[in-house]
Amino acid sequence: MEQKLQESLALLARTPGVLDVLLRDLQETWTLQNEGENTWSAFDVVGHLIHCERADWMPRVKMILQFGESQTFAPFDRWGHLQESRGKSLGQRLDEFGRLRSENLSELRSLNLRPEDLDRRGRHPAFGPVTLSALLATWATHDLTHLHQISRVMAHQYREAVGPWSVYLGVLKCAGHSSS
Amino acid sequence: MEQKLQESLALLARTPGVLDVLLRDLQETWTLQNEGENTWSAFDVVGHLIHCERADWMPRVKMILQFGESQTFAPFDRWGHLQESRGKSLGQRLDEFGRLRSENLSELRSLNLRPEDLDRRGRHPAFGPVTLSALLATWATHDLTHLHQISRVMAHQYREAVGPWSVYLGVLKCAGHSSS
Repeated sequence: MEQKLQESLALLARTPGVLDVLLRDLQETWTLQNEGENTWSAFDVVGHLIHCERADWMPRVKMILQFGESQTFAPFDRWGHLQESRGKSLGQRLDEFGRLRSENLSELRSLNLRPEDLDRRGRHPAFGPVTLSALLATWATHDLTHLHQISRVMAHQYREAVGPWSVYLGVLKCAGHSSS
Repeated sequence: MEQKLQESLALLARTPGVLDVLLRDLQETWTLQNEGENTWSAFDVVGHLIHCERADWMPRVKMILQFGESQTFAPFDRWGHLQESRGKSLGQRLDEFGRLRSENLSELRSLNLRPEDLDRRGRHPAFGPVTLSALLATWATHDLTHLHQISRVMAHQYREAVGPWSVYLGVLKCAGHSSS
């Protein structure tokens, strides 16, 4: 479980750089277009990741360590980024995501979590008892779900342009899974 | 169509850096594990991308420009990388992919393609006539299909670790689409 923590930390530290290399100053065809009504563009996804850094992951880590199962996590607003990131450019969002992620990982490392801490439980509003280890694994996998989504949303913009090759391109067969 | 060419070039130039930031020196749990028998790990995918740089994209671009529809593209071996990249570490593969991509984009730019060139056609062994513009759009979208695949393969390794959150993580609902 300690190994999983190190794996999660390694991946979490990389995601802002991955999105920066992929998206910064890229044409708006790739970054601002979505998959249709009520779906997200890459630009929207970065806003969502910022909102999660502020409102979801570390607040819940700290709730588990402070209150255990005695207090329930606040429900998370999947559309909270729409208010919070309004008016910010993609470059500003990428900067902010990188800064918040770095701060959160510093704080997480400073907790010096021991193996027994990873077994501690909090209370999720829908699932009931959940472990700290599952929360941290989810944080890392959530980055991957949105990298998966961004690659699909970007590929969608070339659905027509690829002509007959669309049948060989798996990403164009992915209909999405909820909104991510 | 000229705009699409610039968009494709911008994305194609970024992919080696994206994979480098994501994968270099990352734990083998993330990079070497796959989704089961006859599926690919991130390590395998980088080998496949190298093979495509050598055997698929630029050779086909040049065939279209030289021979038009009079010669059919050689069929592409989806497992060709197994021979070619054997014995190379992930770091060596990432280096090689970056170098080949850079060389190929330099060569592509040196062709100074005009709008009327993008309408030129070659002959695909399965599809018949295909345009140069569709081939170039496919090259870019193929990068995205494999970024989509890599994020899914990596997330699969945390399927159990995330506990009940698996129901919220779209990438874990993605069953794949052929092998990418």
